Amino acid sequence: MATMHDVARLAQVSVSTVSYVLTGTRPISQATRNKVLAAMAQLDYQPNAMARGLASRRSRILGLLMPMDERGLGATETAFVTGAAAAASVAGYHLVLSPVGGGNLDDLRRLASQRMLDGVVLMEVQLDDERVTVLQEAGVPLVLIGRTGDTSALSYVDIDFDQTVHEAVAHLVALGHRRIVYVNHSAATLASGYGPALRTRDAFTAAMTGHGLEPLMIAAEDSAAGGRAALAAAFAKAPDLTAVLAMNETAIFGILGELTGRGLAVPDDVSVVSMVTSPQVAELATPALTAMTSPGSALGRIAIEALTRHLDGPADLRHQQLLPCTLEVRGSTAAPRRLTLATAGPPSKDGG
Amino acid sequence: MATMHDVARLAQVSVSTVSYVLTGTRPISQATRNKVLAAMAQLDYQPNAMARGLASRRSRILGLLMPMDERGLGATETAFVTGAAAAASVAGYHLVLSPVGGGNLDDLRRLASQRMLDGVVLMEVQLDDERVTVLQEAGVPLVLIGRTGDTSALSYVDIDFDQTVHEAVAHLVALGHRRIVYVNHSAATLASGYGPALRTRDAFTAAMTGHGLEPLMIAAEDSAAGGRAALAAAFAKAPDLTAVLAMNETAIFGILGELTGRGLAVPDDVSVVSMVTSPQVAELATPALTAMTSPGSALGRIAIEALTRHLDGPADLRHQQLLPCTLEVRGSTAAPRRLTLATAGPPSKDGG
Repeated sequence: MATMHDVARLAQVSVSTVSYVLTGTRPISQATRNKVLAAMAQLDYQPNAMARGLASRRSRILGLLMPMDERGLGATETAFVTGAAAAASVAGYHLVLSPVGGGNLDDLRRLASQRMLDGVVLMEVQLDDERVTVLQEAGVPLVLIGRTGDTSALSYVDIDFDQTVHEAVAHLVALGHRRIVYVNHSAATLASGYGPALRTRDAFTAAMTGHGLEPLMIAAEDSAAGGRAALAAAFAKAPDLTAVLAMNETAIFGILGELTGRGLAVPDDVSVVSMVTSPQVAELATPALTAMTSPGSALGRIAIEALTRHLDGPADLRHQQLLPCTLEVRGSTAAPRRLTLATAGPPSKDGG
Repeated sequence: MATMHDVARLAQVSVSTVSYVLTGTRPISQATRNKVLAAMAQLDYQPNAMARGLASRRSRILGLLMPMDERGLGATETAFVTGAAAAASVAGYHLVLSPVGGGNLDDLRRLASQRMLDGVVLMEVQLDDERVTVLQEAGVPLVLIGRTGDTSALSYVDIDFDQTVHEAVAHLVALGHRRIVYVNHSAATLASGYGPALRTRDAFTAAMTGHGLEPLMIAAEDSAAGGRAALAAAFAKAPDLTAVLAMNETAIFGILGELTGRGLAVPDDVSVVSMVTSPQVAELATPALTAMTSPGSALGRIAIEALTRHLDGPADLRHQQLLPCTLEVRGSTAAPRRLTLATAGPPSKDGG
């Protein structure tokens, strides 16, 4: 493999001149620079990433900041990652994933100040997200998968939660359901300001109210036990419920178990719709779950494409895009069997 | 923030000398080097990661090479990642995850030649794994989570599959089961030489033969549909089966669905044991699954600790360690209800 000395000899300059061209630490005349670059090309000289980073101010490395917890990264979120990795490869970048984030802003500051990453895609965004501030202050180009509350100065791609919730509720209402419970993420997740939990809560309230129905939401821990507890709480509040709409992909398996334990059949007694779900996860259940299917790898791909445009484009470039989930009807939804006066009558005084 | 020019001014040397100290491209006297380093310290000068990488030959970045596919990264594998990330942080390194790998050796060669990573932990190892060769040829320090067939020159931490399979089989045999089916990964995964699939296959054969029982293995696609098909195939071969041992965490949900579809109860009619599983996944099922619990984050932590010792230690340092899974009995195993002459009699002529 050619060395810096080989390049210097062929270009008839000193090694330090080659170094200056690579590092940009001292101005070099265009003629000398061109001689050096021509020698590098002729020798197929490969400066390592560090040296090239200094020369081009580019590392050709993009980061996907993806806080991980004990929940794991389900097939649904993994699709974002595989979509992003493929798009980065097409654009000639490496994609690295960093589990940094969550509460650890110091780690994030250090990562940002190292200038290892040309740009960053941020996942699991909260409405008021300090990581955005840290990265903006460090001047790191940034695209979100998700949205903060104020998106005016940001680029993002996110799921259209309003549209997604409205379509899911409309599907259940069209089947004849009136008592629909929405199982969201945990109270702690809601309190932390996690965008998808808050946006779907508001969209559910709007959709149900629009149909003249009472919006009943239960917060569930992200676990099967959390799902069981949430369903018990739902039946305590609404014994006549006939449908569950669940944002919480882990809890939903506990919901299904609790229904079985109570001798209730899906979908004959209770219909279940899973929100923002991959087909792989929907197929794990028996019967397979009717779901609002996540746009999956498209989210990751669009985020990376927007980020690489930022690196080459004007500083005030913005990319803001919402993608809806699509309804896929499987075996877990049907007309309710338990049509009582209370549930089958006119929706409510206000809605009639 | 202090610049390279500030450092040069304070140390009373030229900027190029500061650059040489950082890049190591030219020998600098110890006295001058010390003056420059003292100035950097006084000014709290932060060379960026690229420059520091050139200076120290260290990027302080470790990579976790983790091929991702549409299956996603379950809670079980995610525990490896979170354990590794925590250990890297303690040791003063950043951990980045790269989805590079699988079939794409060119991407891996490029990543290795960039010298961005001080060392690498490799996941999803096959018995004959070309990625190991690529990384060894590039001189990248390497620790495997998993093992190749020939481990003599390698450092690894892996699950003790022999011990794990023997304990799972012993649990079922002690309950009275004689017709036990092992549901492994897919035929394609076995053919590709994926270590865990091949090692557990051999361990299952040894364990069942040791009990005088017939080792019956079915390969299943990594999907719920794959699990359903595998269970149908198992019943076709062994209509009197009373227990399923499953390595395939995705297929197991299809197995549970197919059992329900056939009107068979878990555990009364058929017992189910999940191999190398996190408590989170085991709890998703109803009843919760008896499982051989994965050592989880310890695998990731030990791999990173071994890797950082390699970076500072002698070139011939090796770390080779196996961790067993531990049996956690939950609701999916019990004595078989369907004790027939064929299943309850003496195990076999050879075994008596």
